Amino acid sequence: MIGSARTTPDVYPSRNGTTTSWIPRREPVVYGPTGDIIGPPLDRQSVRSYEESGYVVLDGLISEQETTALRREVESLASSDWVRGQPSSVTEPGSNELRSLFSIHTLYAPFRELAEDPRILDIVRLLLNDEVYIHQSRINIKPAFFGKEFFWHSDFETWHVEDGMPGMRAISCCINLTDNTRFNGPLMLIPGSHKHFVPCVGETPRDHYRASLKRQQYGTPDPGSLSRLIGMGGIVSVESGCGSALLFDCNLMHASSGNLSPWPRTNLFFVYNAVSNQLVDPFSGLPPRPDFIATRGEPASLGRR
Amino acid sequence: MIGSARTTPDVYPSRNGTTTSWIPRREPVVYGPTGDIIGPPLDRQSVRSYEESGYVVLDGLISEQETTALRREVESLASSDWVRGQPSSVTEPGSNELRSLFSIHTLYAPFRELAEDPRILDIVRLLLNDEVYIHQSRINIKPAFFGKEFFWHSDFETWHVEDGMPGMRAISCCINLTDNTRFNGPLMLIPGSHKHFVPCVGETPRDHYRASLKRQQYGTPDPGSLSRLIGMGGIVSVESGCGSALLFDCNLMHASSGNLSPWPRTNLFFVYNAVSNQLVDPFSGLPPRPDFIATRGEPASLGRR
Repeated sequence: MIGSARTTPDVYPSRNGTTTSWIPRREPVVYGPTGDIIGPPLDRQSVRSYEESGYVVLDGLISEQETTALRREVESLASSDWVRGQPSSVTEPGSNELRSLFSIHTLYAPFRELAEDPRILDIVRLLLNDEVYIHQSRINIKPAFFGKEFFWHSDFETWHVEDGMPGMRAISCCINLTDNTRFNGPLMLIPGSHKHFVPCVGETPRDHYRASLKRQQYGTPDPGSLSRLIGMGGIVSVESGCGSALLFDCNLMHASSGNLSPWPRTNLFFVYNAVSNQLVDPFSGLPPRPDFIATRGEPASLGRR
Repeated sequence: MIGSARTTPDVYPSRNGTTTSWIPRREPVVYGPTGDIIGPPLDRQSVRSYEESGYVVLDGLISEQETTALRREVESLASSDWVRGQPSSVTEPGSNELRSLFSIHTLYAPFRELAEDPRILDIVRLLLNDEVYIHQSRINIKPAFFGKEFFWHSDFETWHVEDGMPGMRAISCCINLTDNTRFNGPLMLIPGSHKHFVPCVGETPRDHYRASLKRQQYGTPDPGSLSRLIGMGGIVSVESGCGSALLFDCNLMHASSGNLSPWPRTNLFFVYNAVSNQLVDPFSGLPPRPDFIATRGEPASLGRR
């Protein structure tokens, strides 16, 4: 390890009961030379838009054939009692339906292959200007009729406090395995919110992660800060087709409504972290979360085997 | 009273633990002579569309001046500890914020006046072809960030089982006191669903109404029936501006998502029932719900004082 919470100063303090003022983002959003263009699907304009708003949608990145095969894998996992009983799986509050399954890139070859796919990896490497590894991967299922909402949060806030991610040099890639429509709880984003670190109130309870993955109660901003962020950037609802991908900055504020429709919403999440940004001890001072939620130790960069 | 549960046969049995098959609607949707046109805002085409889909949106029915004044009344009521402590008020699950306040047409003059406004009353009388009275009235507040969802249900199912409304001859009028947008939990409807009575499973617990107004657990259809209804009619999200009104049939299946936005969604509801359709004893066999939820006894028709 190159550092620990004791030697790494906490430049983004949160949940310590005192700090409430926003902290301006210290790191760049796009680390690569801004003149670089890597051609479709990402051109210079998309890179600028990503820098400004914190996200970019890549329509139709994955073919229908691929999404059909991946969806079958997900359905097979979701219907397995054994899988639902694993520590890496999270069920819906109040039912035994699978809500999330973590560490899919280590457990299942098709998801590992997708995580290393150059269509995603090349873009992520360009934006972060570094080798990358998977900090976290998961299937997110929002079941028909009963899939619950997720309140506003910055992933980075959680990864910093609970996992010890030092700075903002990570990108989430969300791949739609179903259409994400206005009716099935699509991701909502606050454009521009990635430029501000919003400390959260309340301390982190021990072993908070199991409850938080079902329903988040800590690591959520105060309503005043949210109103201010939304007043500045508005809300964008990412309605996009099956096979589309969304890349978004680790510090972008996002949420999603419940799913009251008969159409399940199934997405894959891969979080790419720069190898130069590997984890230190959690800034909460508590023990780190399990490896299936946050990859620890010397990371093996992707696509360089 | 003209009847009781003992003498009035239950043509729409529900929550009795045995019935699950749909029952075709026995009553008309539009009772008035279909050739009638009452001019703007409702013309012959709107009446046909209402008959077919079960709802009609009347854009800009109420002026900005009126909505501003009514919103002030609502804010004053919502901030009153005394009001929130009344039996006719319902607070959000897990907080003391006002979610609903019932019987506003009996308690507060400005709401009584609106309930009797010819802009609404003339249309309702035409569609129901009868004198009408207010079966139920309420303010529905969906607070910013924390307003909770409401699951799919037909109001008539509840009014029939819990209040003893004999047949489908009632219309709900929802008046927007704020914009209803895709972000603040607008009403979602299943067009055409008003033509089918979908019996619900489970029996009604005694004094169910207090819990059900916070979070509905009984009187909701099974997922299979919902999927079938949505497969036939789809889902419409009623996004409409402040001052617009939505008229919908008492048996139209509807729901609404939670509000994760900083914009509260405040609507007024007036339920107009035909005087020929006045309540009998509840078909559940349980004692009736309080008068502030369902007007009982000889009704005084509106606008005929």
